[in-house]
Amino acid sequence: MNTPIKNTALIGFGTVGQGFYHYLVENNEDKQLSEIVIKDASKNRIPENLNFTNDVQKVLNNKEINTIIELINNDQEAYKIVKEALQKGRKVVSANKKMIAYHLEELVALEQQFGGKFLYEGAVAGSIPIIKIINEHYAFDEIKQMRGILNGTSNYILTQVFEKGISYEEALFQAQEAGFAEVDSTADVGGFDALYKLLILSAHAFGKFILPEKVLNIGIENISKSDIEFAQNNRLKIKLVASAIKQNNKLVLYVLPTFVDEKNELFNVNNEYNTVEIVSNNIGSQTYIGKGAGKLPTGHVVYNDYSSLDSNKYIYKNVSSGKKLRHETNEFIWIYSNKITLVENFLEEIQLINGAKGYGKIKIKDLIKNKQLINVNKISIITLTESELNRFITDYRVDNKLLEYA
Amino acid sequence: MNTPIKNTALIGFGTVGQGFYHYLVENNEDKQLSEIVIKDASKNRIPENLNFTNDVQKVLNNKEINTIIELINNDQEAYKIVKEALQKGRKVVSANKKMIAYHLEELVALEQQFGGKFLYEGAVAGSIPIIKIINEHYAFDEIKQMRGILNGTSNYILTQVFEKGISYEEALFQAQEAGFAEVDSTADVGGFDALYKLLILSAHAFGKFILPEKVLNIGIENISKSDIEFAQNNRLKIKLVASAIKQNNKLVLYVLPTFVDEKNELFNVNNEYNTVEIVSNNIGSQTYIGKGAGKLPTGHVVYNDYSSLDSNKYIYKNVSSGKKLRHETNEFIWIYSNKITLVENFLEEIQLINGAKGYGKIKIKDLIKNKQLINVNKISIITLTESELNRFITDYRVDNKLLEYA
Repeated sequence: MNTPIKNTALIGFGTVGQGFYHYLVENNEDKQLSEIVIKDASKNRIPENLNFTNDVQKVLNNKEINTIIELINNDQEAYKIVKEALQKGRKVVSANKKMIAYHLEELVALEQQFGGKFLYEGAVAGSIPIIKIINEHYAFDEIKQMRGILNGTSNYILTQVFEKGISYEEALFQAQEAGFAEVDSTADVGGFDALYKLLILSAHAFGKFILPEKVLNIGIENISKSDIEFAQNNRLKIKLVASAIKQNNKLVLYVLPTFVDEKNELFNVNNEYNTVEIVSNNIGSQTYIGKGAGKLPTGHVVYNDYSSLDSNKYIYKNVSSGKKLRHETNEFIWIYSNKITLVENFLEEIQLINGAKGYGKIKIKDLIKNKQLINVNKISIITLTESELNRFITDYRVDNKLLEYA
Repeated sequence: MNTPIKNTALIGFGTVGQGFYHYLVENNEDKQLSEIVIKDASKNRIPENLNFTNDVQKVLNNKEINTIIELINNDQEAYKIVKEALQKGRKVVSANKKMIAYHLEELVALEQQFGGKFLYEGAVAGSIPIIKIINEHYAFDEIKQMRGILNGTSNYILTQVFEKGISYEEALFQAQEAGFAEVDSTADVGGFDALYKLLILSAHAFGKFILPEKVLNIGIENISKSDIEFAQNNRLKIKLVASAIKQNNKLVLYVLPTFVDEKNELFNVNNEYNTVEIVSNNIGSQTYIGKGAGKLPTGHVVYNDYSSLDSNKYIYKNVSSGKKLRHETNEFIWIYSNKITLVENFLEEIQLINGAKGYGKIKIKDLIKNKQLINVNKISIITLTESELNRFITDYRVDNKLLEYA
C-alpha cells in the first residue's frame, strides 16, 4: 500500500476554499492535503478529521509541503504567503485578483527565478478558462481588443434591478446570500474587482503590467433609479463593462457602466454570469460566457489549476512587445450622466436630454481626476459603446436636441 | 547554420490549406514543409518555389516526413491517407469532419497502437478551440448537454435571408464567394456537416462513437418563405441547431432547424459565426462563440494543432462510461411544419396554426424514417426549444386554438 503523499496545504477555507476541497474529495485526492490554514483554528470545522491550523509560517517552512493553494480574502496577507512560497520554489495556485493585479510582475519574476509554478485561473472570470485560452489559443495571434463583464456581483445586481424591479440594496443582499458577492462589496460595486481582472488579462494579452491606481474604474454604486428608467424607456440595459483596446502602440483601458442594446452580445449575459469578448488579428471576434462566481464554478477552475501544476505554465509571451505599449488616458470617451452639469467643465459636445440628464465626450484622465467629485455627489457615469452612441447621435442630431424616445 | 528540417507534408491546398500555409510563413516555419500534395501538380501554383506533387504515396512512404497535415475535401481519400499515416506512427492533423465522424473510433485505436498523434481541432466549430476545452476544462466535470450552431454556411444563409430579405439562392452564392461554403453545399444545407461535428464532440464529451446514419439530421433546405415570414411575425429567428442531451444512460442527438427568440443565446449568433453551449455538473452553462469558417480562422486552429503536436494529446476519458450510454431515438420532440398534415400520421397533440401550418410532437425515429418523404415533398421541419415551446403552448392553449400573434 502506498503511503498517502501529504504535500499540499490549503490556505483559506471560505467559499472558494470549500469548493476546491469538494473536488479534492470527489477525485479521491484529499489524502494529499496536509494542512488547512484558517484564521481561527479553534472554531468547529467540518470535516473534523482534517488538520486545521492557524500557523501559516509552519506550513511555509515545512519542506514536505511543495504545493500551496492560497484562497484567503486579505490581499496583503495573501501577497506575503505567495511571495514566500515562490521564493521557496513551491508550486502555488491563487485566486486573489487584487493581490495578483498589484504584484503580478514581481511574482512572475520570482516564479522564474526560483523554479516554482504560479497559476491563477480562478482569479479571473470564474469558470471561464480565459487565461489558458489567451495563453494557448492566441499563442500565435495578436489580440487587439478585449471587453467583458468580469464582476458577477455587479451583474447580478443590475440584472435583478432591471428584470425584477427590486432595489439595489435588496439585490446586493441576495447576491451575498447566494455566495457570490465578496464579504465587503466595495470592490464589487465600485468596479475595482473588474479592474483587477482586466489588468491580469492585459498582462497576458498585451504583455503589459499596469497598477490599478493608474486606470479608470467607475462602478455601479452611483446608478440611480432614474438612470434605470431612462435605460428601460430606451430599450437599453446597463452593464458594468471592462475594456482594453490596443491601437498601434497605445493601450486604452477602463471599467465603466455601459449602455447596451439588444443586439449587443452583452445584453443577455445575466446574473452571476461573466463574459469575455476578444478581437484578434487572425480569428476575428470570439466570445466566452460562463458563471463568474460561486463555490463550485470557481472551485472547479482552482482544482483544474491544481491538477495541471506539473503540465501547465503561463508563458507571458507578449512582455517584450508590451514594453513598447503606452497606457493612454488622453483619449475621449462618450458618457451619459444623470447630473451632467456637475462635470460639464470637462465635457465637450455636451447635449442635454432632460432635467439634469445629458451626454458628451470626456477624456479618460479627467474622469480619473474627478473620481472623488463623482462619488461625493453620486453622479452616475454610463458610457456608450459604438452602436449605442451612433443611435444617440443619429436620433439626437436630427433636430439638434435630445429627446427621450419612449 | 542549421539545415532546415523538412519533415512536414501538407496534403490539400484549398481554402484551409492556404490558411495553414499563411501561418507557417508568418511564423517562419515554411522551411519545415517538404511537400504540398495537390490533385493536379501541373497547374500553376503560387508560391512557385514550393514542392508541389500529386504523388501521395511517395509522401507517405518517405520516412523523413513524420508529420502529415491532411486538408483535402474528399473524405474517402482523406481516410486512406490518415489511416496509413497513423499506421506508420506519423503525427497527423486533419480538419475533415465527415471522414473523422465516420472513422474516429478506428483512427483513435490506430493512434494508440502505433504511437502516432491525431489532432483535429479545425474539424469542429472553426476558430473555437472546443475539442481542447472539452478535453481539458471538463476533464473533471460531467457534461450533460451540448447544443450549438456548427455550420457556418447555413447560419450565414439564414442570417442574410432574415436580415437582408434576400433569397436563399443568393445567400448561398454569397457564402460560396466569401470562401466559407463548401464546394458542394448539400452537406451544409442538408445538416450533414453539423451532424458530423456534433458526433465528433459527442465522442469527446460522452465517450460515444455513433455513425452519422443512425442520427437525425434535417437541414435548412426545405425552409420556405412562409416559414420565414411566420418566424418574423412572431419575433423569432430560425437557426440550424445541433443538440446532444444526456439523461441517465440515454443520449439524445439531433440536428434540426430551430425557432429561437431574442432571449435565446443563439439569437444573436449571426453569419459565419458558430457557437457551442455546454451544460455540465460543476460549472453550469458555458457558451463559446467564434467564427466557424474561413481561410484564416480555420487555418489558425490547424496551425495551433500543428504547433502543439508534441505537447497536446486528446484523452477520450469518457469512453468507458460511454459504453453504458444508449443512443436513444425513441424520444418525442416538438416540431412546427408548413405542411404539417403530410406527417400527421406520426404526430401527437397536433395543432393547426393556419393554412397547412401547424405543430405537434413526434418521435425522433419517426423523423429519421420519413426523411425521404420530407425531402421529396419539401416539408419544412422546425423544432421548438423549451422556452419557445412554452410560449407556443401557453399562448395557444388559452383558447385552445392557434393564433399567429402579430
